[in-house]
Amino acid sequence: MRIFVAQLNPIVGDLEGNTQKIIQALDRARVKEADIVLFSELVLCGYPPEDLLLHPSFIDAQEKYLEKIVHASARLLVFVGVVRRNTSHGEKPIFNSVAVIKDGKLLGFEDKRLLPTYDVFDERRYFEPGSAAHIWEYKGKKIGVLVCEDIWQHAGYVAYTQYARDPVLDLLPLKPDLVLNLSASPYQFQKPGVRVNVCSKCAKTLHCPVVLCCQVGGNDQLVFDGYSMYVDKEGQLRQLAKGFEEDDMIVDLDAKISPAPFVYDPIKDLYQALVIGVRDYFHKSGFKKGCLGLSGGIDSALVASIAVDALGKENVLAIAMPSRFSSESSIVDAKCLAKNLAIELREIPIEKPFQCFLDLLEPVFEGRSPDITEENIQARIRGMILMAISNKLGYIVLSTGNKSELGMGFCTLYGDMCGGLSVISDVTKQQVYALCRWLNREKEVIPQAIIDKVPSAELRPDQKDTDTLPPYEIVDKVLQGYVEEYLSPEEISRKYAVPLEVAIDLVRRIHRAEYKRRQGAPGIRVSKKAFRVGRRYPIVQGWV
Amino acid sequence: MRIFVAQLNPIVGDLEGNTQKIIQALDRARVKEADIVLFSELVLCGYPPEDLLLHPSFIDAQEKYLEKIVHASARLLVFVGVVRRNTSHGEKPIFNSVAVIKDGKLLGFEDKRLLPTYDVFDERRYFEPGSAAHIWEYKGKKIGVLVCEDIWQHAGYVAYTQYARDPVLDLLPLKPDLVLNLSASPYQFQKPGVRVNVCSKCAKTLHCPVVLCCQVGGNDQLVFDGYSMYVDKEGQLRQLAKGFEEDDMIVDLDAKISPAPFVYDPIKDLYQALVIGVRDYFHKSGFKKGCLGLSGGIDSALVASIAVDALGKENVLAIAMPSRFSSESSIVDAKCLAKNLAIELREIPIEKPFQCFLDLLEPVFEGRSPDITEENIQARIRGMILMAISNKLGYIVLSTGNKSELGMGFCTLYGDMCGGLSVISDVTKQQVYALCRWLNREKEVIPQAIIDKVPSAELRPDQKDTDTLPPYEIVDKVLQGYVEEYLSPEEISRKYAVPLEVAIDLVRRIHRAEYKRRQGAPGIRVSKKAFRVGRRYPIVQGWV
Repeated sequence: MRIFVAQLNPIVGDLEGNTQKIIQALDRARVKEADIVLFSELVLCGYPPEDLLLHPSFIDAQEKYLEKIVHASARLLVFVGVVRRNTSHGEKPIFNSVAVIKDGKLLGFEDKRLLPTYDVFDERRYFEPGSAAHIWEYKGKKIGVLVCEDIWQHAGYVAYTQYARDPVLDLLPLKPDLVLNLSASPYQFQKPGVRVNVCSKCAKTLHCPVVLCCQVGGNDQLVFDGYSMYVDKEGQLRQLAKGFEEDDMIVDLDAKISPAPFVYDPIKDLYQALVIGVRDYFHKSGFKKGCLGLSGGIDSALVASIAVDALGKENVLAIAMPSRFSSESSIVDAKCLAKNLAIELREIPIEKPFQCFLDLLEPVFEGRSPDITEENIQARIRGMILMAISNKLGYIVLSTGNKSELGMGFCTLYGDMCGGLSVISDVTKQQVYALCRWLNREKEVIPQAIIDKVPSAELRPDQKDTDTLPPYEIVDKVLQGYVEEYLSPEEISRKYAVPLEVAIDLVRRIHRAEYKRRQGAPGIRVSKKAFRVGRRYPIVQGWV
Repeated sequence: MRIFVAQLNPIVGDLEGNTQKIIQALDRARVKEADIVLFSELVLCGYPPEDLLLHPSFIDAQEKYLEKIVHASARLLVFVGVVRRNTSHGEKPIFNSVAVIKDGKLLGFEDKRLLPTYDVFDERRYFEPGSAAHIWEYKGKKIGVLVCEDIWQHAGYVAYTQYARDPVLDLLPLKPDLVLNLSASPYQFQKPGVRVNVCSKCAKTLHCPVVLCCQVGGNDQLVFDGYSMYVDKEGQLRQLAKGFEEDDMIVDLDAKISPAPFVYDPIKDLYQALVIGVRDYFHKSGFKKGCLGLSGGIDSALVASIAVDALGKENVLAIAMPSRFSSESSIVDAKCLAKNLAIELREIPIEKPFQCFLDLLEPVFEGRSPDITEENIQARIRGMILMAISNKLGYIVLSTGNKSELGMGFCTLYGDMCGGLSVISDVTKQQVYALCRWLNREKEVIPQAIIDKVPSAELRPDQKDTDTLPPYEIVDKVLQGYVEEYLSPEEISRKYAVPLEVAIDLVRRIHRAEYKRRQGAPGIRVSKKAFRVGRRYPIVQGWV
């Protein structure tokens, strides 16, 4: 039995385009003499469709496009992720479902039973949970179908939620010969390996192979890594589709192939996630060109490299905007980087508008000493220049702040936080260094001087980040403990050997900066818990 | 039997302060010789606590504060909204619950059964639904307890969701003599009247009085209007607490009082909602002073008036920032308004920085014609000035854009969208006029010239809003149809008599501006569907 696993990159809401992709995959599957074609979760509308699901016209249209897919399914058994109406009782009017189609005929649906409603997932907002497990018989094989989360509970990886049911165990009495899973499982750092364990546990429990098809590509702030997989009934990985690109994977259940360990480089994966996150954000919205401010520091250097890999060097414009506080080396390093990346670099010194604002505001400030205000003015002038270039020349501005800075509020709202997309806002400062070292593994992409220099915002004389913040190793530990693990400052202090008063101070800073982050550019989510999507805190609160 | 309805304004997360408020209310209740004290939903932690609920230390602390409340409950039966741990099976580890306390002893809990997960509500993200209805017997009366949403299903007002259960009907066989409801029901335009109908329906079905206690005050983007109420067993309103402020309402079930119709002015209520939204956003976060740009237009005039009522005239600073395109009358009108409101007005012309940026960017723009870029530069210079004043002098910037502009993207990101709080971002242009006319009902607050002038952003010579947009009556109809009612452009065209091509164009504009709104300042939600909180759309999408 041959299964064609169609790992596609749909655009959310583009029913016409996604249907074409699906029908083209059916054509390729017939060429490959497949019996079964497996798509990913909600592939017809793309994941996550969010509140588009609340529009009846959006649901109606999906029913029409499903008819086209049914019509194009000759000689195949097809499992395709679609929204379907709930026509009986229940809390919500639609299901997150799988249409099961055989040779031009719609056999029925298998509805998702476990609806994640935590972190980035809001499925209870829209969907009614499915109620029953079915077996779909085909060519003598009994096939069970699970949708994404349905398979996760069994392996013990679901956080915060403990579902009353386990759809894997629900299948046990039905004795399936094969389990198919349709997923839209977002990438996070080191998650692809976890997904192998999840499939493996299911296969071992049910004593049958598991084939999982994952969505790939970036949709807004979420990146889907692909890595669709085939795990045999012993729970061993046999085949793995490509990461971070579309792929057709043919699984021949009768073929002799050896188990293949999942070897991957988490830092390379992280880099690829950021690249596809940028590329799809631009290309799916019809943009080609990105610009960014190049400070000579490591963050903007990394973002420039990601932009080049995502958009092509000819589509990346770097702007150096030195001020009276910029060091000589900053512009030298920025030029060196631009040369390495072969991108255009323009230099626009900000001294004139900076002095102009200082003069303009002098009567209002009445001789008060310089403080954060003047630093923010510089950052905002830079934001203004980038946005003007964006408006006039059609570039999307890439914001270059990292997660450690954003966490601490060490960034300027409407200044360096400007942009259409915040590329590394979910990447810690320590990961920034790791990524740059990885980029330089064969030849120097990021100039060594940029990696070696002491971090500085260069917004006042001789400024260093550590004037304001503890070393980033400490910051990153507190972010890990508080944001990802929900530990109290006392627990963080014990677990990560951080002085208690430092932990308390940094947790306060995290909450104090909530108002800034709320207005930050959307950022590509690559960690277990990003600051934007999937994290919801009050701005005004009396807890911390 | 005397019920003390404690309509309080808690600060989200401020367990210490909220506990003090609760204990002080218990003291006042004893003075008033009450038998029962009724608080609002989750009054201990404030509503909505959002992801603070994911911190085990936050749940632990609530258990400790609950002990203090129990300790302070002598001679009273108390119903107080708290989070409690789910110690048995279930999907989520906590309940949205009511602690029932009698004379120093915790009798037990009544858990919320219907968990709204739509619009601004994410209760399934955190809570396990309660399973059973109880009767609490006290002084010969059988008391049923419902938490907010539990009472709404029965009256048919729940949108999108159709719960499988109806907690009002669940109480029917238990024959309660009295039903208490603890609510945190956010204000929206014309909603207070609906709440009377909801209580009335419940009272009629159960043939018993209903007493509802509502949270009051602003928490981030949500405003709670209060208006706690007592409805008799015939379903007639007998008593109503104050709107938009804390109130102690004593309900004497045995007293003879006549039914009182709910008379209220929706425009006055809307104004009060905006005032309390601003006041609580500032005061709950420890700020006193607000500043805003005064353009001479109607939107900033309205916001200035709201700011004065929320913060006091001495705490409001207005800045006029005329450009080469500002009309003579703009500054005259702004001065007249500032005089009417008795607020300080400073004038900071933006010509110098504007020219400075034009000169700076000339080499990059290479002789291209002026376009939206130059308009945005002016708006961003104004944003920069306001933010500098905010940074240096400790003001929070109030953003002044209305919902109609935001919906259309007729606003500048990092420009007029700057601010800590967007005051009228959920108020349509037509409501802006209605509010200004209401303000002027006795004497002129908003100068008539400001109300009469043709709307213009004054960012290029002789600009009018209608150069870019259809009249606001049309814009507001399409917003109503698309954003609140989820109609298709065809349906909007039919229902609101708008030409189809206009409806299609405006719906496209709504989606195209999603990226701007995502980075806008948080705004006070006063409609059925605001653009920020409770509305979740992909930025990159292929549907519209």
